[in-house]
Order: sequence, then C-alpha cells, then structure tokens
Amino acid sequence: MPVGTQGTVKALTPANLVEVGAEIILGNTYHLYLRPGHNLIEEMGGLHKFMGWDRPVLTDSGGYQVFSLGELRKITEDGVRFQSHIDGSYHVITPETSISIQESLGSDIMMCFDECPPYSADYDYVKNSLDMTTRWARRCKQSKKNDSGALFGIIQGGMYGNLRKSSAEDIIDIGFDGYAIGGLSVGETKPLMYEMVEVATPLMPDDKPRYLMGVGTPEDLVECVGRGVDMFDCVMPTRNARNGMLFTSSGRVSIKNRRYERDSGPVEEGCRCYTCINFSRAYLRHLYMAKEILSSILNTVHNVHYYISLINNIRKAIEQDSFKDFRKQFYQLRGAPVN
Amino acid sequence: MPVGTQGTVKALTPANLVEVGAEIILGNTYHLYLRPGHNLIEEMGGLHKFMGWDRPVLTDSGGYQVFSLGELRKITEDGVRFQSHIDGSYHVITPETSISIQESLGSDIMMCFDECPPYSADYDYVKNSLDMTTRWARRCKQSKKNDSGALFGIIQGGMYGNLRKSSAEDIIDIGFDGYAIGGLSVGETKPLMYEMVEVATPLMPDDKPRYLMGVGTPEDLVECVGRGVDMFDCVMPTRNARNGMLFTSSGRVSIKNRRYERDSGPVEEGCRCYTCINFSRAYLRHLYMAKEILSSILNTVHNVHYYISLINNIRKAIEQDSFKDFRKQFYQLRGAPVN
Repeated sequence: MPVGTQGTVKALTPANLVEVGAEIILGNTYHLYLRPGHNLIEEMGGLHKFMGWDRPVLTDSGGYQVFSLGELRKITEDGVRFQSHIDGSYHVITPETSISIQESLGSDIMMCFDECPPYSADYDYVKNSLDMTTRWARRCKQSKKNDSGALFGIIQGGMYGNLRKSSAEDIIDIGFDGYAIGGLSVGETKPLMYEMVEVATPLMPDDKPRYLMGVGTPEDLVECVGRGVDMFDCVMPTRNARNGMLFTSSGRVSIKNRRYERDSGPVEEGCRCYTCINFSRAYLRHLYMAKEILSSILNTVHNVHYYISLINNIRKAIEQDSFKDFRKQFYQLRGAPVN
Repeated sequence: MPVGTQGTVKALTPANLVEVGAEIILGNTYHLYLRPGHNLIEEMGGLHKFMGWDRPVLTDSGGYQVFSLGELRKITEDGVRFQSHIDGSYHVITPETSISIQESLGSDIMMCFDECPPYSADYDYVKNSLDMTTRWARRCKQSKKNDSGALFGIIQGGMYGNLRKSSAEDIIDIGFDGYAIGGLSVGETKPLMYEMVEVATPLMPDDKPRYLMGVGTPEDLVECVGRGVDMFDCVMPTRNARNGMLFTSSGRVSIKNRRYERDSGPVEEGCRCYTCINFSRAYLRHLYMAKEILSSILNTVHNVHYYISLINNIRKAIEQDSFKDFRKQFYQLRGAPVN
C-alpha cells in the first residue's frame, strides 16, 4: 500500500496511482484528524471522494504517529492526550474516538488503536503495554458500528518472542477481520524483525489477511511474504523517490550520481512505467539536480510501480508454486548471496 | 506557450501538457545552456527527446535572462559576458553562440539574441541599444544553419513610440520567419504597454506570426490579440498555480482563502480540466495548506488549461468574426467595465 499521509500519495495524482497499479492506499488518521479534520472530510463525502480515489483505503489508528510525538503526549488507560505538531493545540484520542474518526473518513479497513512501544522498551513495559493494547482492541471492536469498514487487530510484543505469542493469542481471541503485526521496523536488526514475524504468523488464521505495518525494503517484502505476510505499507518508495533514490531489480540507483549524467537508458531496462518508457536517467538526474517538481513525480511513479510489480510478481510466483525460485532469482539479480 | 525553463514545465508531465491542450512550449536557452548544458542535450537527441515532448518548442535567445543578471554581466558589441547564477562561473554569449546553442537544443522556433533594456532606460540608451540589437539580429540570421528551425526577429524600442517604429522597420527589413515584440511587461503601466503594441503591430507583416514576449494576464491576452498579436508566453499560469492562485472566467481565486475550506464545488463550474472534474476547492485548499506537491500539480493543470482554453476561445471568436462580442463577455464575466 502506497502511503497517502495527508489525503494524497505524495507527488501522485489518483490517475497516476491507477496507472502504476495501486489497488489500495493507506491514509493516516492522525494527520487527517488534525488537518483538514475528519469532520470536514466527512462533510465532503468521505476520504475517497475528497481525494478522488475510488479504490480501497486502509487507515491506521493514529496511535503510531501520536506515540512518535514523545514529550508531546501522555498515555493513560483511557487513551492518549497529545499536542498537535502543527499548532501545539491539545487533543485526546481514545480507542473509541480513533474508530469514530476512521468511520468518519469512510475507511475500508480500520486499524485498532494500539500502543507501539519504542525499540528500547524493556520487558515489563512491553508486557504492560500489550495488555493495554489488548484491552483497547476490545474497546475498538465494541465501539465499531455494524455498517462501517473492516477492522484489523494489531499484534504487539516488542522484541520478545513470548510476548509476541501471547499478544497474538489475545488479539486473535477477540476476533477481527484481519490481523496486523505492529511495532516492527523501529530500529531492530533484520534477523530480529524476521524472527518476530516468524513467531506471529504461524498463530495467525490462514483465512484472514496478515498485514506487517510500516515495512519495508523490497528484500523485506520477499522475506516476510516467505514468512506468511500478505500486506505491507511503507513510505520508502515515495520518500526515497523524492530523495532521488530509485528501486530496480538489480538494486538501488541514486539518480544524482555523476555516472548517470549522460546515461540515455531508462532507470530500468524493460520497466513498463511511464517514467521508464519516456525518460532517460540523464533527464531524471537533470530534474533532480535542478530541484524540479517533475523529479519527484517521475521518481515516485517509478518506485511505486516497482513495489507494486514486485508484489504482483510474488503473487504470481506463489500461484505457480515457484516462490522459492522467485526468491532465488530476486537475490541473484541484485548480485546478493541467497540463503 | 507554457514556459518550460529547465526542460520541464514546472509540475507537469508531457502527458499532462498534451491533456491540457498545449501545442507548443517555451524553453529557456540561458538555463539549459548552464544546466544540464546544450551539448549534453544535443548528445541525448535534442530537447524534444530529452524531455519527452514531441510537439514544437520555441527557445528564447538567453538574452533576457542574461540581462536580468544586473551586476553579473557586461555588454559589448560582440555579445555579453556574464557569471552563472548557479556557480559564478564566467561565460560569453554572442548572437552567433546563441543561435548555435538553440540549434543544439533542436529548437523549432529560435529567437534572435537581443538586448532588452530596463524600464528605466533613457532615450539615448534605448536608441543605441536597439541599433545594436538590429546589428545582432543580422548576425543571428547570417549564422543560422539552413536546415535548423525558424528564426524570429525581435522589435525593441523601450517605451518610445518612434524607437519602436524604427526598430520594427529595421528588423522587418532584415526579414525573419516571424516577429516578436520584446521589452514589454517590464514595469510599465498597462495603457503604455498596449500603446507600444499598437505602434508595432500595424508595421508587422500579416502573413508572419506576431509574438508578444513574456506577456501576460488573461486581460493582456485579450487586449493584445485585439491589437494584432498571435503568440504569447508567460510564467504566470504556472508560477501563480504554485502560489495557490487560480484563474477562472470570473476572476482569480486564492485557494488558501478560508472561504473555500468547505467548498465542495470545483475551481470553475463547467471547466473540463482534470482538476475541476475530480477535485473540490476544499481539497485543493487542503493540499495547499499542507504544502503537498499535488497542490502544485493540480493547480498548474487547471491554470495552463485555463490559458489554453482562453486562447482557443479567442481563436474561435475571430474565426466566427465575433471577437468584439467575445471581449465584451470576457469582461462581463469578471464583473469589470468594458471600454
């Protein structure tokens, strides 16, 4: 899922998104709640109509962004009190208001309001936190209206395998339309992240979507699909695009590099995105160096197309029962060793 | 002509440009000469191929931008020595190198290298300047290769009617594929600008395009077509778009205005651009307030579409011999008095 934090996937029109094959995008509840406000969006007919996007939208709960505010927020059993990063005004989000805001936005897939503890959190903190997350998950489910979108539960537990396990059991016990693994990609090593995924996925129902939140690199997608994950969201394709970093099957391209100054080839040979069909690396480098808006547009088109094609190819490989070969080839193309 | 200073019309893809009906764009020789360099663009197959634009390109001579550098440039009979605004490096552009650079770019319509005197220039300065501009125009024509694009001469003469007249006579006497009026919209009043246009156009051949450089507002387009002008270029639709100022037939809309916060209507009722078909003023205001790239994209799409539709409507009115009525209605729609 490309990330559309403020009611737009940065630098793309909805037409661009359809063209690169996006089937669903993510909206950030925290940002939309603060600006332009969920009530305004509801008045305007909901987020889909407001932003001109008629395919599904998943909204996060606002929790992750609120907890990222550090000194600006205070957590209680009821919910979280915090100050806006825009104007310093005070706000409270509880499990009930999070669901209500997501309902106002017209979300197709809503997420439970959870606490995402920092990577540095110790065992006791994480244990207490996930117990509260479980209580909050129950409150989210209870407060949800019958006719609103799907609701996913979130498994927390930090970097502690047994806590991940008990969180998974608790959340699955409540019963949701899908399950997410939260609190990863927060600073831990890749092996530890994969280990935490491996603990959770075997416990998750086969017939419900499994969503790994905020992850990740192309390698992460391949590794975590291999461990049983279905859905991802990440700002990496869009943010890196704006910083001139392009994804290809043979690795990353930093387009500002002098070596591309007179490179008349596309970012990736054979890529069918608008950018690769029409423009050279030399042109993209020029746009980046000249700080042109079109640089962000064309780079984002390519990167989002790359990510969606990757997932489509993974899906195809699974359907053809050839995921193992796919994974091998994926690493070979980037000249990396395959485990 | 939308302005594509650095090899891109800011915030638009070539596909966007085709969609809004752009038939020709302007490229800035000074900027492209400095970055990425005309030789690089030539190696990459010319400006059209480099930027993925297969319709005509008009290039300016670089003169206007060089003269705008003020203290950073020195004018002699040979040409102009100047320092780059990017890195302070020294360069010389002469009439011959200007044409040669424009030929490297693969321009469809090249402009003569001319001096554009400041608004404050006195009679003697302007007289000497236009005499040199005439000598430069001869050198431009002589140095042009037979198989390169069309070449337009530029009429100067500041705010002095008799100098405009003698410049027009001199330039037309040399003989070009089209003629431009330069050195206007540099700080003078509208009546004075229109007066200078009125002096020049009756002297210009009926069978050659007449191009008023760097102009202007929608009102300027209507007024100057009424005085015999065929072609315009201006950064106004693109630059104002990025500043949240939108053009409509009833006047300008500053999209950040609080009154549009909950306005579910399009920028302009009945407008057929991608922006007006798909998005509300409320959404455009949100994007602008949140400083999203999509704000620049959608606003630019609308404004360039507005300008091109305006010119198309003017053309239609002329063909139907109803320009006078068109002009009357144009002012009535904006609630302005018609002279």
